[in-house]
Amino acid sequence: MVKRIMERFESLLPYSEAVSIFDAVPWHLPGRERVNIEDAAGKISACSVFSPMDIPDKNKAAMDGYAVKHINTSNASDHNPARLELSGVNMAGGGAGYPLKDGQCREIYTGSIMPEGADAVIKVENCEQSGDYIYIYSPVLAGENVASIGEDISRGSLILGEKSIIRPQNISSMTAAGIKSATVYRNITIGIVNTGRELVTGQINNSTGSLLRSFYRRAFMDIIDGGMADDSVDSIIEKISNIRKKCDIIIVTGGSSLGRKDLTTDAISRLGKMLFSGVSIRPGRTIALFNVDNMPVLSVSGLPVAALMSSLIFVNRYVQNAFGLEITEKAPAILEERIHNKTGFTTFQVMNAFVKGGELYARPLETTASGRISSLLMGNSFTLIGENLEGMEKGSRIIINVIGDIKWE
Amino acid sequence: MVKRIMERFESLLPYSEAVSIFDAVPWHLPGRERVNIEDAAGKISACSVFSPMDIPDKNKAAMDGYAVKHINTSNASDHNPARLELSGVNMAGGGAGYPLKDGQCREIYTGSIMPEGADAVIKVENCEQSGDYIYIYSPVLAGENVASIGEDISRGSLILGEKSIIRPQNISSMTAAGIKSATVYRNITIGIVNTGRELVTGQINNSTGSLLRSFYRRAFMDIIDGGMADDSVDSIIEKISNIRKKCDIIIVTGGSSLGRKDLTTDAISRLGKMLFSGVSIRPGRTIALFNVDNMPVLSVSGLPVAALMSSLIFVNRYVQNAFGLEITEKAPAILEERIHNKTGFTTFQVMNAFVKGGELYARPLETTASGRISSLLMGNSFTLIGENLEGMEKGSRIIINVIGDIKWE
Repeated sequence: MVKRIMERFESLLPYSEAVSIFDAVPWHLPGRERVNIEDAAGKISACSVFSPMDIPDKNKAAMDGYAVKHINTSNASDHNPARLELSGVNMAGGGAGYPLKDGQCREIYTGSIMPEGADAVIKVENCEQSGDYIYIYSPVLAGENVASIGEDISRGSLILGEKSIIRPQNISSMTAAGIKSATVYRNITIGIVNTGRELVTGQINNSTGSLLRSFYRRAFMDIIDGGMADDSVDSIIEKISNIRKKCDIIIVTGGSSLGRKDLTTDAISRLGKMLFSGVSIRPGRTIALFNVDNMPVLSVSGLPVAALMSSLIFVNRYVQNAFGLEITEKAPAILEERIHNKTGFTTFQVMNAFVKGGELYARPLETTASGRISSLLMGNSFTLIGENLEGMEKGSRIIINVIGDIKWE
Repeated sequence: MVKRIMERFESLLPYSEAVSIFDAVPWHLPGRERVNIEDAAGKISACSVFSPMDIPDKNKAAMDGYAVKHINTSNASDHNPARLELSGVNMAGGGAGYPLKDGQCREIYTGSIMPEGADAVIKVENCEQSGDYIYIYSPVLAGENVASIGEDISRGSLILGEKSIIRPQNISSMTAAGIKSATVYRNITIGIVNTGRELVTGQINNSTGSLLRSFYRRAFMDIIDGGMADDSVDSIIEKISNIRKKCDIIIVTGGSSLGRKDLTTDAISRLGKMLFSGVSIRPGRTIALFNVDNMPVLSVSGLPVAALMSSLIFVNRYVQNAFGLEITEKAPAILEERIHNKTGFTTFQVMNAFVKGGELYARPLETTASGRISSLLMGNSFTLIGENLEGMEKGSRIIINVIGDIKWE
């Protein structure tokens, strides 16, 4: 039995081919929903949004002072101040008041609507009051200290791009424009089924399930814990079937062991079609991809780091292809020490990144054990080493994916 | 009236002094609570956690193959293979089985417990089976392909640091060690009260409240919307009083206008002591800090960007002093264009950061309007320019705080 199963792994699919096969499937995507604007933070927008109004929608004072006709101040100087009659006050939140007449000014506050006829605001510190008159010692330009209509956001301008992460600034802009809800993609729902008698019996704790659930639980992702399946085809089918209608992607862990690989493969093959099994990546080469009604089902290792890294390739592809976004935060870094690679494998190397002298460096962790969760405790990032590289030289510029705290030295 | 109020702002407190005053107060911190381990993601740990057990807790196979006594293979070669009697199988999830006798081997799978007496695993691809015997063609070293007790995490080693953000890898390690809950700091609760008749009457939409709420709603922070207060001392006091017992920090917006500044200052002064008013920062110089029963209450501008940037200084200080953490993600970048600064002011400059040729660059946005939310839509980061700098030269290494998507060119 052992020898027969082995054959399946003798030829591993190159990483790039596995990705091409994944990319070629028209995977089902999450639908759209309308949510309250403040619940939209971190979600993926489903539509572009253009401002339906000018912001500000009226000319407003941008300083505390006096609204004037700028022409009335054009000859003002220390020796020959302009003398303007004070004609009331426009408070913030109030109306425009009477139109301003020639020779008049109006006390005004930041955010107050400008009176009709006024085209500039003189800062309070450049004036003096004497009775009902304000003395102004220097000229002001037309439009000075005025926030004019549409100056911040003009009607029709883009305030939220389609397929982008909704940020606080988008929410604030939409609120300013009177928009109270947003159309977003429903969260991408990741179902996780862990298989293995050692989990069911409690012989080991389900640290792999725990890692995947806490990693994939993000602003635009939901997790469904599909529970633990025993070492039987029926049990695995049952656990997947229980959650499949609610999921966009399912990850089945515990296909790492050759003896068990048969079980998960048999089980998932009854639900859909296997697209590949065995990819030249380290860790996680035992990964298999199935198409179940155009939903990707990934069978991955039972070891935590291998399960995470190998599933992440394809979950990230799903998000990239559909939305042009990436799950983990990328950063450019300088390689601080040579990395060796086993050619023929695309390798996830755990790194420890740090900032020194204003530059981001990354040092590889010496770890070969793909299952070791301790490597992720010691590192804070990872990088991908291409299968054709024997290594990467010290000083190379690399891309890291940040998954922990970066120290500043 | 206008002139009298102005005097308060004639001397602005330097940024560094404002920070020193803030840092000197023994602010009340959130308490601790125990949460389910998987609900702890992104929260701040309140205790160091050390593993109560070795992981793995037993010697286990790290490959699929045959468990052996390494000594039985020491002379194995292609011409003279070791011939070992197959003595059953140890499945993953099963027990150790009978102890292994000299001259025997045991079929074993990744994660299976090693039989007593075995000290190495031969990979399945390096063996051949014939009847009840396994032929082995090369020697194996003691410990080879075995995950030995404590190899990943040894008993007593640190798996979660105190006052650190709890990451998926911490959760997974704790789960592996049988830990089901974590002691965390309660979320820092930020109360936000927006003042201004223009909000109450709906003359303008509350984009400032919206920005602050969506920005400060984070993994380890909660928001309480204290509602909108009218332009009266009583209304402001009422809104603050309604939420003060539930908050760790309160931000009151709308003290930007000189006319209104009096109202918020009067209101908050009845609840606590003003520590400063007016700081040499741009935007947001009107900020005032009050100590209300050792809870910081910040009175800030009603303009969104000024309100965010000026409050962020002190909310970030609170988090830094208490937990050694920062709210926004920092990154080192190269300044792509000269920035000019008005000396005497610590300036928040909105930047557009991008990656080019493996390096992170940041270009300043040309914007002087502190209230413009559009600047945050166009940029994706900000940097702080010190008050003594007339600017920063092109090519300087700067620190940016990332608040949007960074483009890779």
